[in-house]
Amino acid sequence: MDTSSPTYLVLDLTGTFAFALNGALTAIRVARLDIVGVVTLGMLTALGGGMVRDTLLDALPPATFRDWHYLTVAAGGSLVAFMASRSLDRLATPILMLDAAGLSLFAVSGALKGLEFGIGFGQAVILGAITAVGGGTLRDVLIREIPSVLTSGLYAIPALVGAFVAVTGDRLGISDLPSAVTGAVVCFIIRMLGVRFDVHAPRPR
Amino acid sequence: MDTSSPTYLVLDLTGTFAFALNGALTAIRVARLDIVGVVTLGMLTALGGGMVRDTLLDALPPATFRDWHYLTVAAGGSLVAFMASRSLDRLATPILMLDAAGLSLFAVSGALKGLEFGIGFGQAVILGAITAVGGGTLRDVLIREIPSVLTSGLYAIPALVGAFVAVTGDRLGISDLPSAVTGAVVCFIIRMLGVRFDVHAPRPR
Amino acid sequence: MDTSSPTYLVLDLTGTFAFALNGALTAIRVARLDIVGVVTLGMLTALGGGMVRDTLLDALPPATFRDWHYLTVAAGGSLVAFMASRSLDRLATPILMLDAAGLSLFAVSGALKGLEFGIGFGQAVILGAITAVGGGTLRDVLIREIPSVLTSGLYAIPALVGAFVAVTGDRLGISDLPSAVTGAVVCFIIRMLGVRFDVHAPRPR
Repeated sequence: MDTSSPTYLVLDLTGTFAFALNGALTAIRVARLDIVGVVTLGMLTALGGGMVRDTLLDALPPATFRDWHYLTVAAGGSLVAFMASRSLDRLATPILMLDAAGLSLFAVSGALKGLEFGIGFGQAVILGAITAVGGGTLRDVLIREIPSVLTSGLYAIPALVGAFVAVTGDRLGISDLPSAVTGAVVCFIIRMLGVRFDVHAPRPR
Repeated sequence: MDTSSPTYLVLDLTGTFAFALNGALTAIRVARLDIVGVVTLGMLTALGGGMVRDTLLDALPPATFRDWHYLTVAAGGSLVAFMASRSLDRLATPILMLDAAGLSLFAVSGALKGLEFGIGFGQAVILGAITAVGGGTLRDVLIREIPSVLTSGLYAIPALVGAFVAVTGDRLGISDLPSAVTGAVVCFIIRMLGVRFDVHAPRPR
Repeated sequence: MDTSSPTYLVLDLTGTFAFALNGALTAIRVARLDIVGVVTLGMLTALGGGMVRDTLLDALPPATFRDWHYLTVAAGGSLVAFMASRSLDRLATPILMLDAAGLSLFAVSGALKGLEFGIGFGQAVILGAITAVGGGTLRDVLIREIPSVLTSGLYAIPALVGAFVAVTGDRLGISDLPSAVTGAVVCFIIRMLGVRFDVHAPRPR
């Protein structure tokens, strides 16, 4: 997929928006921060994964700094969450769903950008997962939670599966949008099933 | 501003020195580390923000590794703090002032380096703030404190304002030193007023 | 030392394997994670230091993504640790020894790669230490422990000494393997003596 295409930008910015809302709501609910802290955590959650991706791909300066859409969407999403939160009674479910949406979109966008920059198939899948979990991991570290990627059985796995689907679609020559959307939807469904049924991976005895 | 000029180097190294003292004193006061931990935390606080800045700008290897002044000033500042701390009864005030000084100088130096590397006006302001809060955030994460940038109402704001002043001065063609110093002084004053009067940004209900 | 030589690859991959085992066993013992968390923490511990090294050297994409051996060895080591842990009564000693082995090998490989990329002598020594402590520091941050590099008197010091020995050997024209191995062995011995006799560096009064 051509990462300068409008399709790619929409995918990546939608993930950015979902993570901005998620990070900002987490700041409000878990850490009870003021508006500056809320916007900062929202922006870091939204932009962190992409910055790590672009650093690893040597696509520097990262898209965040090349294209003003990213900063605008991340700041806007955080402010929207700050204001909307006043009318929400319970935040837990939207936080989980937004996180799953960001995870899914970034898994796909990270993996496809990796392919475009010439890294291998397996590496692109891993890079997709890193992009997907990167922002949320920074978010959790800053508010002193153990990151979801370590504790939540089905968190890295759906990201890897979604990235795998998107990369496979690309290799099979399926056109961009269907394979990207399929990958994201597969990731989202697995993640939400994991949350719904509290699925855990095996633990050591 | 030409980032290879002596003026720029002095600004950036003064910020490095302030953050080295700050990080080392924090290690002593908050985390009660031994000399190796004190120097390590001092150096990370002093050099972390600049390393993040140079990575995002693709100015790699970072200035830290290109110019021996940085490592020397960071290590020297940390050792000075280790020795001087024995004669200080209270460390809280110097820690806060040094942090504000590092914040102010790095906000300006980060933003001006961003401009020189060709990123946009708004991005340069954000990059200045990232440079300013980067080292302190790494410091707080390593000693398991919630970073100031999230909890302290007037921490990111003065950095953004200081960076904005410096970048505006540059765009208006005002000569380098006055606009850089004005930006840093404005940042420092806002930050210290915030500390003095315990100003907080609005919180969600 | 030529970082594309088999000798270098063996050094770097052995360090990767040791840190993968270490990170995975830490996940099991300290944080009681499931298999996904165990493998994630093992891979991050194994690959984190090298990724930071390659970012600072502008050797991007990092070796992790250029050469499939790294991902394979890191994932394999983590899985081996997950399975082997069931037959181990006590994990504390192997965790410490594997950490010391990874520390030693990465101090040397990081410093020698720095020299090859043209940074100075002192910077190469520091880069070796950053490579050595990087993965373990990320590991500790994610599981909310204060990193060993801050609290353990003899942790950064042996890494600096090992890197110094390897870099000095290179500068004196001693052939690659002996100076690298000597540096790693010196680092390992100092580290294990520090653990055995619980050596601490001086603290401030």
